[in-house]
Amino acid sequence: MISFASDYTKGAHPEILERLMENNFDQMPGYGTDDICRSAADKIKEKCGCPDGDVFFLVGGTQTNQTIIDMLLKPYEGVVAADTGHIAAHEAGAIEFSGHKVLTLPNKGAEKDTDKYGSDVGKINASDLKKYLDTFYGDGNHEHMVFPGAVYISHPTEYGTLYTKKELTDISAVCREYKIPLFLDGARLGYGLMSKRTDVTMKDIASYVDVFYIGGTKVGALFGEAVVFPKGVPTAHPVPVIKQHGALLAKGWLLGIQFDTLFTDDLYFEISENAIEMAELLKERLTEKGYKFFLDSPTNQQFIIVSDDKLKELSQNVGYSFWEKYDDTHTVIRLATDWATTEEDVETLMKFL
Amino acid sequence: MISFASDYTKGAHPEILERLMENNFDQMPGYGTDDICRSAADKIKEKCGCPDGDVFFLVGGTQTNQTIIDMLLKPYEGVVAADTGHIAAHEAGAIEFSGHKVLTLPNKGAEKDTDKYGSDVGKINASDLKKYLDTFYGDGNHEHMVFPGAVYISHPTEYGTLYTKKELTDISAVCREYKIPLFLDGARLGYGLMSKRTDVTMKDIASYVDVFYIGGTKVGALFGEAVVFPKGVPTAHPVPVIKQHGALLAKGWLLGIQFDTLFTDDLYFEISENAIEMAELLKERLTEKGYKFFLDSPTNQQFIIVSDDKLKELSQNVGYSFWEKYDDTHTVIRLATDWATTEEDVETLMKFL
Amino acid sequence: MISFASDYTKGAHPEILERLMENNFDQMPGYGTDDICRSAADKIKEKCGCPDGDVFFLVGGTQTNQTIIDMLLKPYEGVVAADTGHIAAHEAGAIEFSGHKVLTLPNKGAEKDTDKYGSDVGKINASDLKKYLDTFYGDGNHEHMVFPGAVYISHPTEYGTLYTKKELTDISAVCREYKIPLFLDGARLGYGLMSKRTDVTMKDIASYVDVFYIGGTKVGALFGEAVVFPKGVPTAHPVPVIKQHGALLAKGWLLGIQFDTLFTDDLYFEISENAIEMAELLKERLTEKGYKFFLDSPTNQQFIIVSDDKLKELSQNVGYSFWEKYDDTHTVIRLATDWATTEEDVETLMKFL
Amino acid sequence: MISFASDYTKGAHPEILERLMENNFDQMPGYGTDDICRSAADKIKEKCGCPDGDVFFLVGGTQTNQTIIDMLLKPYEGVVAADTGHIAAHEAGAIEFSGHKVLTLPNKGAEKDTDKYGSDVGKINASDLKKYLDTFYGDGNHEHMVFPGAVYISHPTEYGTLYTKKELTDISAVCREYKIPLFLDGARLGYGLMSKRTDVTMKDIASYVDVFYIGGTKVGALFGEAVVFPKGVPTAHPVPVIKQHGALLAKGWLLGIQFDTLFTDDLYFEISENAIEMAELLKERLTEKGYKFFLDSPTNQQFIIVSDDKLKELSQNVGYSFWEKYDDTHTVIRLATDWATTEEDVETLMKFL
Repeated sequence: MISFASDYTKGAHPEILERLMENNFDQMPGYGTDDICRSAADKIKEKCGCPDGDVFFLVGGTQTNQTIIDMLLKPYEGVVAADTGHIAAHEAGAIEFSGHKVLTLPNKGAEKDTDKYGSDVGKINASDLKKYLDTFYGDGNHEHMVFPGAVYISHPTEYGTLYTKKELTDISAVCREYKIPLFLDGARLGYGLMSKRTDVTMKDIASYVDVFYIGGTKVGALFGEAVVFPKGVPTAHPVPVIKQHGALLAKGWLLGIQFDTLFTDDLYFEISENAIEMAELLKERLTEKGYKFFLDSPTNQQFIIVSDDKLKELSQNVGYSFWEKYDDTHTVIRLATDWATTEEDVETLMKFL
Repeated sequence: MISFASDYTKGAHPEILERLMENNFDQMPGYGTDDICRSAADKIKEKCGCPDGDVFFLVGGTQTNQTIIDMLLKPYEGVVAADTGHIAAHEAGAIEFSGHKVLTLPNKGAEKDTDKYGSDVGKINASDLKKYLDTFYGDGNHEHMVFPGAVYISHPTEYGTLYTKKELTDISAVCREYKIPLFLDGARLGYGLMSKRTDVTMKDIASYVDVFYIGGTKVGALFGEAVVFPKGVPTAHPVPVIKQHGALLAKGWLLGIQFDTLFTDDLYFEISENAIEMAELLKERLTEKGYKFFLDSPTNQQFIIVSDDKLKELSQNVGYSFWEKYDDTHTVIRLATDWATTEEDVETLMKFL
Repeated sequence: MISFASDYTKGAHPEILERLMENNFDQMPGYGTDDICRSAADKIKEKCGCPDGDVFFLVGGTQTNQTIIDMLLKPYEGVVAADTGHIAAHEAGAIEFSGHKVLTLPNKGAEKDTDKYGSDVGKINASDLKKYLDTFYGDGNHEHMVFPGAVYISHPTEYGTLYTKKELTDISAVCREYKIPLFLDGARLGYGLMSKRTDVTMKDIASYVDVFYIGGTKVGALFGEAVVFPKGVPTAHPVPVIKQHGALLAKGWLLGIQFDTLFTDDLYFEISENAIEMAELLKERLTEKGYKFFLDSPTNQQFIIVSDDKLKELSQNVGYSFWEKYDDTHTVIRLATDWATTEEDVETLMKFL
Repeated sequence: MISFASDYTKGAHPEILERLMENNFDQMPGYGTDDICRSAADKIKEKCGCPDGDVFFLVGGTQTNQTIIDMLLKPYEGVVAADTGHIAAHEAGAIEFSGHKVLTLPNKGAEKDTDKYGSDVGKINASDLKKYLDTFYGDGNHEHMVFPGAVYISHPTEYGTLYTKKELTDISAVCREYKIPLFLDGARLGYGLMSKRTDVTMKDIASYVDVFYIGGTKVGALFGEAVVFPKGVPTAHPVPVIKQHGALLAKGWLLGIQFDTLFTDDLYFEISENAIEMAELLKERLTEKGYKFFLDSPTNQQFIIVSDDKLKELSQNVGYSFWEKYDDTHTVIRLATDWATTEEDVETLMKFL
């Protein structure tokens, strides 16, 4: 049964598996201290235009969010995020588990009006952020409140939407005005960078934020996220922090090999582009068939409204993600393309839609 | 350069890589809810003789220790361990990070007398444990102290030593008397089970302990530890606990595939045996050459005392682990064989020793 | 300078100080194990109609909220509260510090329309709560979300508003349906119970909730909160939990003496009534002078809208609490009466208003 | 029944109660922002010779240890202490609860030989500390271990013993060499400073350590500990850190009044001296009666060995603290004098011994 349920239903790009095979009996030092990790980090730093940055590799997204946020915050600080942000909604309290509050800003586009929803859902904006910070610092005594110590955004967001260069610049400016580090969750970064409707490059991101990560798990790797601190990691000892979170992979080179492969000959971007092209094709087909989109996503995740009767039938033949109930007789579902989706896959899916 | 520095310097058993290749484009549901994980769990439960148990898969050792211990303990409880236990000494405070104290028992064999050292180092024993618990509960008010809420042992220990069946039975009996769960860290379990000098089987372990894990990272897998609760997991919702620790792998089937392969046709045991045979060969060769052993290890980790001059030379040609300074002119080093070590590797090593 | 800034600007009721004097050299066992604590607990249990309950005494509100919530929750659970709840907004992240998320429900009455604001602000209601729980448990997979493990309400709320008996019954019924404990923060409980506009008694509260506390700090004690678990405390070892939070007072009898005094001859209720009568007088005078109320509070905290010019003058002569900016030229301030406020105090205040 | 069980069995020095009475209806701002706290802090800073230091007041010892240690440590750091240190042994895991490991050094004097025991028990020493730090930083990779981020000592120790000026200087020098802050727990500081056998003054302490506290709970106050950072507090926002620990007393001036009284006309020292004189008298009487001391304590806590038969009788008439079993027929008990003990009390006690 074919599945468009998510972008993490398959293994890895074949070149990665080949490199793992080739390297299998080369003996390597542990914990990411090997040369391949170094090579991968160098390639990433070059691509990001931050030769003096620090890059390290972790296994998965929640782990990465938890570990980075812990590195950024003082004990009495929390992290600002959209209320739909992954760390706020879908990580089982991993941030609170490590002692920090997620301070939520209501995301725009809560209305079920496709147009408005499309551009802003899942995002925060600079003016809301500034208002929040102004109020926090302006209103007399705030020493009994949680201090905003970092700002978290995801790009693409959990809804597949993207920040514009202007929006990122503005958010970044507010963060710098308040000396608060900006962290960008790029679990699906490739799909954002290769969108047909973006003016944001990886170098832009590296220049706007204090830390971000380049998602591998959802973009062609077996697993892995490459964390980039463009201006250097803000703790003298990142290793024990990572270890303490149970996030230090013994065979760290497995991450190095994957990212070294993905950042050789722009493989990461090429396979990301495939997902975007397949998403565009999917949108075309869905539009032809008269499907209504729940929101206007420019990346690989597409959200459509399906009647519950149709859905019953569909679920016999195709994998999809339940998103939310739309009304009493309709449901929003997510269909995601990925680095390996083919035209044939899309056509197969469309047979059942 | 050949390395005997550890048992996690190589990738995975070729059969595992092949299965990953074969399965690469089969679409799978996430987070370990797939059929391969189920199959692997079933094979493990059968091997352990605990059909009603629960099995799940995590990525690495520290993460596993942290997550399991958090599942076992109430907030005011700590975990009892040898002061040389991995959780006490080498996990960067991962247990304390999640709010719990490691209550240490001094391990026996602190003397540098090989014979005594050999049998007990790294272990706790039932009588020390009982004395500790008797004192705790006996001495008037203990409500200002950390309650012992679980007992942690490693088998093999960090020194490669093993518990006997009698020792495990006794520790288990004390735990049951005090209603305290017993947790066995089996990061190198295969090497313990296949030792020439053990009377302990996997079924024994499953019957003595409340939870243990079967190490994959050090025994033929790319990564992964199989957690076994022979009588069932003690929390209604293990998934959010795992997620909260950043320990839930998105592509959970990668773990399933590895353990399913390792537990097909006893591959896990067969490759573990290889490490033991190579360790025996290594010991023979070292003895022939007159090397003094720091302790008498019946498993794949061997500890020898080397003059610092010799060591200087050795480090040009061979990977090893520094263990500790023995005296002003000698050093203890660790040499580890593994699932893939060959006779040729041993002979190559011996050329430099 | 007279102050209406809060209800914790004065020491304690003189009878309490006298008891402290009398008892000063009677030697007492530590940590609340003394007879006076027992006597105070018995009086409270009788008053609450819960002879089989557990009562213990802590020092302050945030400490109490943090400790109780930790007792109620499993590690993967959070506590549901109004977004204006003290634990959500004004405790510097004390709940997150101990590892738990505060799951917020938007409180009703966010509009600056006095009437609507008056009845609901600061409260949650049963239907919102039920909807939240239904959605949580209804929507497919929630294992990546924080489980609702307790419900927190304050009575009076941070805005001085009160739940009706009907509202409490309904919230309690939802909690019981979902088997989630209900916790009532009664930092100002006396002022709620003695309001002219309440139908809720202490026995009602004890029958609706799983745990609540009777505020002393703001109601006639030097410090102290009496925690009541009407059906017993849900942990076998409350003392180490309290100790671990740094919340175990060495000279526990100081708390016992205060609550024993407050619960002798209904002193607690008598002095609470004084605050209410003074608040009613204050409201009368403010209304006469044409002040507009920000909301309709039936307890000792009153919120009025004052022009910024007036406020400048006022601040020279009277203590008040800044609450929030109302508009560009007006500010909301809080004026609180307490157990010791006199008619003369009110008249003095009114001279400056 | 008279009790020598501890130094926290009575209320407060009468002058403190009088000041509380006098001040009872003076309205004060909350959370320690009042003038009396400021006055008390100034008096303490003058006494300590640290005009640029920071002083604030907390309620109890465990709370103070927990909060200060959290201020000193980075997330991956632990605190070094004697294995008998209060934070290591008797605070129910409060340090681990806030995420940090207590790294223990074995205290000297574990032998039951009175003489040796007397001078060192409960203490750490500079050479052990240096050796620990040398080993930590010397031994190759320590990034998987808990970093020593602060050193905790108590003075007097939990056994009533004292550091000499030389010992403190040496420990302080090691800490400065390694840039690790030194924290001195002075829960019984007055009794240490007024010992007949000390050469350490409060100014010495303020010059050797980075933070210490002056115990009030055990030395004449109802409750309260004055925290002194001689060179300033190391966090920009101590208030939210304190609040987050549930340690911010609403009526902070209650602490200010107590310490302002204790530091007026050297009352703190005068009443501490009383405890010492009574301890000396007690030792004289005990020696006359042939009692054997478990250790040689120069402060207010005395430890004697009593036959279990005698103890049975004693427990009918006198309060004491069980310390530990000495042998099968003897027990070590603690007898503590305090700021209010009279000669008559001692003679009454001796009637039963």
